[in-house]
Amino acid sequence: MTKSLKLGVAGLGTVGTSLIELLATHRDRLANLGSTVDVVAVSARSKDKHRAIAETAGVTWFDDPIALARDPAIDVFVELIGGEDGVAKEAVEAALNAGKHVVTANKALLAKHGVALAQLAEEKGVALNFEAAVAGGIPVIKTLRESLAANSVRRVYGILNGTCNYILSTMTDEKRSFGDALKEAQDLGYAEADPTFDIGGFDTAHKLAILASLAFGTEINFDEIDVEGIQSITDADIEAAEDMGYCIKLLGVATQTDSGIEMRVNPAMVPEESAIAEVWGATNGVAIDSDFCGSLLLVGPGAGGKATASSVAGDIVDIARGIILPPLMRKAASLTPCVRSKLGSHQGAYYVRLSVYDRPGTMAAIAKHMGDRDISIESMVQGQMRAGVPGAEARTKVRGAPAPVRIITHETTEEAIRQAVEAIEQDGKVSERPQVIRIEKLG
Amino acid sequence: MTKSLKLGVAGLGTVGTSLIELLATHRDRLANLGSTVDVVAVSARSKDKHRAIAETAGVTWFDDPIALARDPAIDVFVELIGGEDGVAKEAVEAALNAGKHVVTANKALLAKHGVALAQLAEEKGVALNFEAAVAGGIPVIKTLRESLAANSVRRVYGILNGTCNYILSTMTDEKRSFGDALKEAQDLGYAEADPTFDIGGFDTAHKLAILASLAFGTEINFDEIDVEGIQSITDADIEAAEDMGYCIKLLGVATQTDSGIEMRVNPAMVPEESAIAEVWGATNGVAIDSDFCGSLLLVGPGAGGKATASSVAGDIVDIARGIILPPLMRKAASLTPCVRSKLGSHQGAYYVRLSVYDRPGTMAAIAKHMGDRDISIESMVQGQMRAGVPGAEARTKVRGAPAPVRIITHETTEEAIRQAVEAIEQDGKVSERPQVIRIEKLG
Repeated sequence: MTKSLKLGVAGLGTVGTSLIELLATHRDRLANLGSTVDVVAVSARSKDKHRAIAETAGVTWFDDPIALARDPAIDVFVELIGGEDGVAKEAVEAALNAGKHVVTANKALLAKHGVALAQLAEEKGVALNFEAAVAGGIPVIKTLRESLAANSVRRVYGILNGTCNYILSTMTDEKRSFGDALKEAQDLGYAEADPTFDIGGFDTAHKLAILASLAFGTEINFDEIDVEGIQSITDADIEAAEDMGYCIKLLGVATQTDSGIEMRVNPAMVPEESAIAEVWGATNGVAIDSDFCGSLLLVGPGAGGKATASSVAGDIVDIARGIILPPLMRKAASLTPCVRSKLGSHQGAYYVRLSVYDRPGTMAAIAKHMGDRDISIESMVQGQMRAGVPGAEARTKVRGAPAPVRIITHETTEEAIRQAVEAIEQDGKVSERPQVIRIEKLG
Repeated sequence: MTKSLKLGVAGLGTVGTSLIELLATHRDRLANLGSTVDVVAVSARSKDKHRAIAETAGVTWFDDPIALARDPAIDVFVELIGGEDGVAKEAVEAALNAGKHVVTANKALLAKHGVALAQLAEEKGVALNFEAAVAGGIPVIKTLRESLAANSVRRVYGILNGTCNYILSTMTDEKRSFGDALKEAQDLGYAEADPTFDIGGFDTAHKLAILASLAFGTEINFDEIDVEGIQSITDADIEAAEDMGYCIKLLGVATQTDSGIEMRVNPAMVPEESAIAEVWGATNGVAIDSDFCGSLLLVGPGAGGKATASSVAGDIVDIARGIILPPLMRKAASLTPCVRSKLGSHQGAYYVRLSVYDRPGTMAAIAKHMGDRDISIESMVQGQMRAGVPGAEARTKVRGAPAPVRIITHETTEEAIRQAVEAIEQDGKVSERPQVIRIEKLG
């Protein structure tokens, strides 16, 4: 006899409705894999909006998702409400306490309470699955938790926010300004009316916090991530990157260093010929460097109802098949604290864009500030660089007005570059805040 | 108390010795995940060569891998012998019959006997895991079997042979001939002394046969794959591809069509800006297009002892965690026959390179043969195309001697293009066999 798995789904936005569509479309497929999957209870903000689902035979409507989470009729509670606290947290706790498996797409909840929830799931002997919480349809949680279980991970990084990648792609492809590209993303529904959470890098940081825990066996620690968004990226930076053979991407990067875990979210220049540079538009890409497997890169849809529902459904199939693992791979109690690497210990090359007053001696002064901190300069160009003619347009500008200077350094430390840029600013030779972008060494 | 999983490892080549290194390196890590993993029996061709392993305390040496497979002391038989028949097959059957789990990296064995072995494993209630058999360290088997279980897959394709990709990459990057690049690959140990199996596309076809079964729920059917290798690719083709914004890759492609499954291995032109075009050197890339998840691309090391051992170890960890699934995702008895799509039904654009005798009316005759079969021509260029100057070098050649003609068609059928090319050949206007390369539509 085929088993049957009973779901309660809280939240009927794009992911929730796509999940219900998927389960209907693939009913026979799932039965053939060993278990039918039935939605027997739902909850959402507006019953009117979801009357068709609410009034389906065999489906119970709950106004209160916490009551749904405790419903004796369900085996699995699917949390698609969102939010790091409040009702989502209470409902997930209620479900786990009632001995239900939980599947969630809620990265904010996990970034803040993931360890405690994982521990609760372990105590109750149930699953807490969250493939959909990071990078939409990309199976990165399963890859870290299962495929790479016998590897020591050195670094995990990626393009984890489709909105930012869409904006940067539009700026690059269509030579549009940041403001223009953001407005288009909002018009297309890729960006929220208040886009701070996405473009400020916080959404990426939530996902990175979860990935780092799985990668390094450390507690989830969102607060130890240095977060920088894409708001300051200008078309001049995009052009400079192109001229030098790079693309600008918003990366989340977590690295195991000698002094601890370095976690940061920042715009970065990646080589044009790297595979991650070809991750365009709303697509996500996650790379994992480990000792035996080497470098893996997973690319796919980072958001969208259908792709996210695919990951939720994969988590449900695991439960139907009896695959119940510790949510964070190791037992939650055995996770070690996430110790931050020494401040300023990041090493790498940097791109620095300055807007300098064009006076005699300025370039020499800038170069000296760099040299004083042992920063070796790979290239330093004044003026525009388009079409492979460095400085060509510099001649047409008004003498004495601010002119762009672009510097590429050899490998140095974050500390040194910050100090040098501060010294340059204090000289009063720059007309605006210097732009500093990391050049990411890949592979 | 921590459980202990006892392994018998048959075959101590690069993968076997890397596996033993991995298990030693990550002994504590695996114990923390819930089970120690101990190699208690080994077998290989030469005991002398592996004396250190053979004489390790607690390890029993077997001259006969079939006897090892039946050893009551082991829980899991790890088959790293290779070969589609003979001792590898007998040993795997012996292990399954004795109720042992099996982990294998043997694609040839699975391509030929996978369904029967899967059925045997199901009957015995044991695992038959083979992540390492396809694309080395890339977790494509787990992604298809688990993550995408609730999706209908439309197409799976990829760069599945590192040797071929290394040769094509070297030809592209260093403007080397096929023969030169092959020799280098052999010198570096990437290619066998007899490279037919790799460069003829058969290794790719073995892997594709396995992927297609998982993707479409069909029996493994290696015989229904159209296989074409990279032997005929010349530097002229590589140059033409670059000039037109493409790269040449050896792809394995399996597509669900209305009339059945189309499975083929062939050199293909892929757009330079596609992510799979950035899969260089010995790296592999596998893409999966499915109805809810959309397009996923997994990139990583396709071969090498360490990466392959990582996949073998992942399979072992699954067994230690009690994850035992039907090897081919569905019950082997429920797989449907792999019906080949209608002959000639492949649709796509084509690149055709002809070496034509330069006589009046030749181009018109070629164009007419195309037009007669409703093939619409996107571009047709006589002579060299380097540096964006089509035909520039044609002027310097001897009048009447053969000259290259490159044609790009719009979408047409395989049948039409084959007929047109045959007609052109029969006219006696070409000095050598025409080259036909598919232009692959991605995404």
